[in-house]
Amino acid sequence: MTDRSNLESRCINAIRFLAADAVDKAKSGHPGLPMGAAPMGFVLWDRFMRHNPKSPGWFNRDRFVLSAGHGSMLQYALLHLTGYDISIEDIKAFRQWGAKTPGHPENGVTPGVEVTTGPLGQGIANAVGMAISAKHLAARFNKPGCKVVDHNIYVLMGDGCQMEGISSEACSLAGHLGLGNLVALYDDNKITIDGPTDLTFSEDVPARFESYGWQVLVVERGNTDLEEIAAAIEAARAETARPSLICVRTTIGYGSPHKAGSSSTHGAPLGADENQATRKNLGWDAAPFEVPESVYTHMRKATDRGAALEEAWNKTLDAYRDEYPNEAALFEELISGELPDGYAQALPALGDEAHPAATRVLSGKCLNALADELPGLIGGSADLTPSNNTALKSSLAISKDDFSQRYIHFGVREHAMGAICNGIALHGSGLIPYCGTFLSFADYMRGAIRLSALSHAGVIYVMTHDSIAVGEDGPTHQPVEHIASLRAIPGLDVFRPADGREVAGAYHAAVERRDGPTLLALSRQSVPSLDGTSAEKAMKGGYVVRDCGGQPAMILIGTGSELSLCVAAAEELEREGVSVRVVSMPCWERFERQDPHYREAVLPKAVTCRVAVEAGSGFGWERYTGSAGAAVTIDRFGTSAPGDVCMENFGFTVANVVQTARGLVS
Amino acid sequence: MTDRSNLESRCINAIRFLAADAVDKAKSGHPGLPMGAAPMGFVLWDRFMRHNPKSPGWFNRDRFVLSAGHGSMLQYALLHLTGYDISIEDIKAFRQWGAKTPGHPENGVTPGVEVTTGPLGQGIANAVGMAISAKHLAARFNKPGCKVVDHNIYVLMGDGCQMEGISSEACSLAGHLGLGNLVALYDDNKITIDGPTDLTFSEDVPARFESYGWQVLVVERGNTDLEEIAAAIEAARAETARPSLICVRTTIGYGSPHKAGSSSTHGAPLGADENQATRKNLGWDAAPFEVPESVYTHMRKATDRGAALEEAWNKTLDAYRDEYPNEAALFEELISGELPDGYAQALPALGDEAHPAATRVLSGKCLNALADELPGLIGGSADLTPSNNTALKSSLAISKDDFSQRYIHFGVREHAMGAICNGIALHGSGLIPYCGTFLSFADYMRGAIRLSALSHAGVIYVMTHDSIAVGEDGPTHQPVEHIASLRAIPGLDVFRPADGREVAGAYHAAVERRDGPTLLALSRQSVPSLDGTSAEKAMKGGYVVRDCGGQPAMILIGTGSELSLCVAAAEELEREGVSVRVVSMPCWERFERQDPHYREAVLPKAVTCRVAVEAGSGFGWERYTGSAGAAVTIDRFGTSAPGDVCMENFGFTVANVVQTARGLVS
Repeated sequence: MTDRSNLESRCINAIRFLAADAVDKAKSGHPGLPMGAAPMGFVLWDRFMRHNPKSPGWFNRDRFVLSAGHGSMLQYALLHLTGYDISIEDIKAFRQWGAKTPGHPENGVTPGVEVTTGPLGQGIANAVGMAISAKHLAARFNKPGCKVVDHNIYVLMGDGCQMEGISSEACSLAGHLGLGNLVALYDDNKITIDGPTDLTFSEDVPARFESYGWQVLVVERGNTDLEEIAAAIEAARAETARPSLICVRTTIGYGSPHKAGSSSTHGAPLGADENQATRKNLGWDAAPFEVPESVYTHMRKATDRGAALEEAWNKTLDAYRDEYPNEAALFEELISGELPDGYAQALPALGDEAHPAATRVLSGKCLNALADELPGLIGGSADLTPSNNTALKSSLAISKDDFSQRYIHFGVREHAMGAICNGIALHGSGLIPYCGTFLSFADYMRGAIRLSALSHAGVIYVMTHDSIAVGEDGPTHQPVEHIASLRAIPGLDVFRPADGREVAGAYHAAVERRDGPTLLALSRQSVPSLDGTSAEKAMKGGYVVRDCGGQPAMILIGTGSELSLCVAAAEELEREGVSVRVVSMPCWERFERQDPHYREAVLPKAVTCRVAVEAGSGFGWERYTGSAGAAVTIDRFGTSAPGDVCMENFGFTVANVVQTARGLVS
Repeated sequence: MTDRSNLESRCINAIRFLAADAVDKAKSGHPGLPMGAAPMGFVLWDRFMRHNPKSPGWFNRDRFVLSAGHGSMLQYALLHLTGYDISIEDIKAFRQWGAKTPGHPENGVTPGVEVTTGPLGQGIANAVGMAISAKHLAARFNKPGCKVVDHNIYVLMGDGCQMEGISSEACSLAGHLGLGNLVALYDDNKITIDGPTDLTFSEDVPARFESYGWQVLVVERGNTDLEEIAAAIEAARAETARPSLICVRTTIGYGSPHKAGSSSTHGAPLGADENQATRKNLGWDAAPFEVPESVYTHMRKATDRGAALEEAWNKTLDAYRDEYPNEAALFEELISGELPDGYAQALPALGDEAHPAATRVLSGKCLNALADELPGLIGGSADLTPSNNTALKSSLAISKDDFSQRYIHFGVREHAMGAICNGIALHGSGLIPYCGTFLSFADYMRGAIRLSALSHAGVIYVMTHDSIAVGEDGPTHQPVEHIASLRAIPGLDVFRPADGREVAGAYHAAVERRDGPTLLALSRQSVPSLDGTSAEKAMKGGYVVRDCGGQPAMILIGTGSELSLCVAAAEELEREGVSVRVVSMPCWERFERQDPHYREAVLPKAVTCRVAVEAGSGFGWERYTGSAGAAVTIDRFGTSAPGDVCMENFGFTVANVVQTARGLVS
């Protein structure tokens, strides 16, 4: 064994045992994947990754995504050993309250962790989003001899990622787009929690990826042959026209005499005895959590390399500034993440003259107006472009041959679409991703929407066809419970605007909110412009649209297409002598972030006669209607019929709102 | 042209124009797919499908699933023409209120429609479930020379189905299991709503399916060459060891001079002029909705054929009864869908002696007890068998080589798992499907869960690790909003049992409910047995667990693992002189189906001091706590730390419940 290979073996064992020791100490975690994948992790990080541990946010770094998020200790070990701000104490605190080293990787918690993974398949789709971002920016900004965007996206997948549908969707699109900057390492250990993968998974993964248009490489000796791993990564980097999958044959829990190759090391600690036996087996005599100085010395060369890389890139940027000052100004503004001054003034005044129109149509106007002002706006639809009104007049669609465009045909791939948008947002280059589908199909992408919220990704979800008023397509396509179920997600702002002014307010709020997602629920059908609505007030989440003199006897609360019913009902009730206030409540979450005085001013506790009107589930509305109130909602599935017939037959009429209100005051 | 081909062409045109006319009349719908897929639909139904239009529920029929559900008029036309109870008036009422011909196919609404489709990819996964059912029953019951289960599952997929991740999951598993009774016709028309599929979809679909282990056949002249279509279906039927994909090249909107081959015919009517031009182009001179008698005469031969098939099968069954009386009795009991008398008595008495134990462990005991009594119980987990406790001691796993078993390793394929279970339930053979994963990953399968409810499929969802008490795995794996968001789905019973007795009650309720899904939310952590709980009372959804004398001053309402906190808090509050009632509310939906007197007796309106305690989102709890109440819930994401630490730090302690309660009475 040469000195070099000896040293490299030590580095790999250091990774393995940091993982095994941390899991043992926590009595919880997944040691198997880190121990098996340590060689590929080491080779990638030691020989290929261009990053700067002391400047983890450096723009032109390579990105690394641990799609097999349960192997988090692999990533923490690599981060620690290469010099990120993760100490041995942090490693010892693995999976403990307040630690930088949670059970699955979380961006914002751990320096150097790019995205939050764990739910399988999300990470590979995030990586596809990052690769799209990098290709897009490179196509827009790079100049001959001056590459300001020049990095790769590496992702590590496990068997579970391969089985999840979201990864099939994302990888199919990655192949279609020829994402040559994407390199996926597949930890092909043939073990899942239930046992050997051949219990349920016998497909030919390489052939599948070839069918997607990927380059597929195989590393047969992934446990031991670093040169074979390195040659494969080299070949993947050399292929710039296609994404690459490297199938690395490994042994889960490598080195463990009794548990290697078994599902018993998937999600359970080795335990003291087996840990000791593994140390002996691999010739590792360091104490628990002890890392030989030689390992640090070698691996922390990454910090010097990283500083040099960043320095070189700064020089490239200087040259770019000199030669292409306009492009440089735009590029730097973009990657700063700052929104351009005054961009919101471009939002169209969608008042009376814009109506009657569907809020999805008004949404299209806002998107197009914003696209002119926000160079980072980029997005598309899951094959519903004409229905979602997501097309950008100023842009063609991104394709393999022209990556400078800003529209994305995601295909009928909702789940991947959401996760790709998370990846675009978390690429951290100032891009503002939006994506559209029918609201009903939020169900298909809920795994990704939740992660937008958890990982603070400022994705804008453009969800049209937002109620039973969808009509003829029937109950499969008519949202009922969706708005309620989305409101329940912590950190997601759900906006259901009533007219053009509120649509503009919703977009302003969504764009402004760069640290979390906003979902817009938009009507298929036309709605009128309403007196008293306001973009600015809509941004407060709830406000008085129409008031009576003095304390109202009754408050009608509406959202979206039903706000107009409330206004008309209020007029009728007033004719009957009931003093009525109408409150528009387009975004509960924003309303709940207002101060208590404002909230009390809009919805005084003393007024207990309240009727909420929303063409969706009543679930949750008791929060605002209170024990004495009522709601005009729908708590069953819809039916196939023209939208206006559905609305009328399910009680979304002025007469029914009036009658329900009367029931409270009589 | 021969007489036969002439007649067949007329049949195909009848299908095409029933679709085009119905869409034109409704001014809504998707004519393109039916017009392009009419030849394959005709050949399949006319030459191959074994079914009985006058007896649509006949057990041994071939099943047909229109996974491309937007082409519903293809199916309605075939049903009408072959003699199902769908009249021309029904066709004329396409997409209208109360019609048998809704926008997308819905089982229970239209005779002969097996499953509800429309959300893309669901149908192919349902078909995989049906194919599993048929293979399983055949393996259990068929005898040499006596095949009581002998039918195929046909499914028609579009491009959208191919792109959805759920279909990748389902088709990978179908290949693994060698479902030779599954034949998928892929309407390969290369057009989606956004335009040509090559905008976003350039993968090699045949190669992908070969990588899954499917037989792949290609029909090049799918618009015109009926013999080529027939030969492919014949070859698919002949292959019994592998599922078959037949890629049929078609033209969307075939025959339309200006719209054929274009996305403009995907989701929009042809319109009168183009309809007329298409009639001329295809030489069709029948009036709108007019079907030549020769077409009826030919296609309704299906009814005689069907009667003969059913008759022959009845004879087979007679012979089977004679020769294998025990098997026959079991088989007939099973396919009757009736539950065995007294099965519920086998549910274990999981009282004090079973505790402390996690409700997921107690769930495993119930499942195993039920498996002995319910010959139709069949299910598995998405690669979390040991965590979900879903294994059956009495059964090995289904495999290609032994389909008689009752356990299914679904792999890490949650979305397909749900849809496969829908297919098993809707196969209509008395099988009772259950499936398990972590509650957090309900998000991945929500599209299928919603369809369980909408299509009245009695699937049992075994969702473990139901709160932040999951602990170390962290926020990605800790459900917060999931229970609320599932409660919002109409028709889904969500059960969160507190201890063993309630787990048994939950299973009794879930099994009994054959016309709708039940989801069980089960704890990872151990819980105590509680005085006053009851399986029978739990089946009411909500009941008094612990009471005071007379009218209580305060009601504590708990579910699942937090019910014990309520009981302990009540004891403490009573020591302070507050008379407290504790209500267990394991299933809101069942409680809400009780009569008003019962509900008032449990939760008297007069008692407004109420505290709800649930380790999940408070969203929706205002329904029970009312304006004057409070809730101990969590409305943010959790964190990675030991479960008990999470519970304590997020306020799920007796002390915090007591303090919250005191805040109301003081």
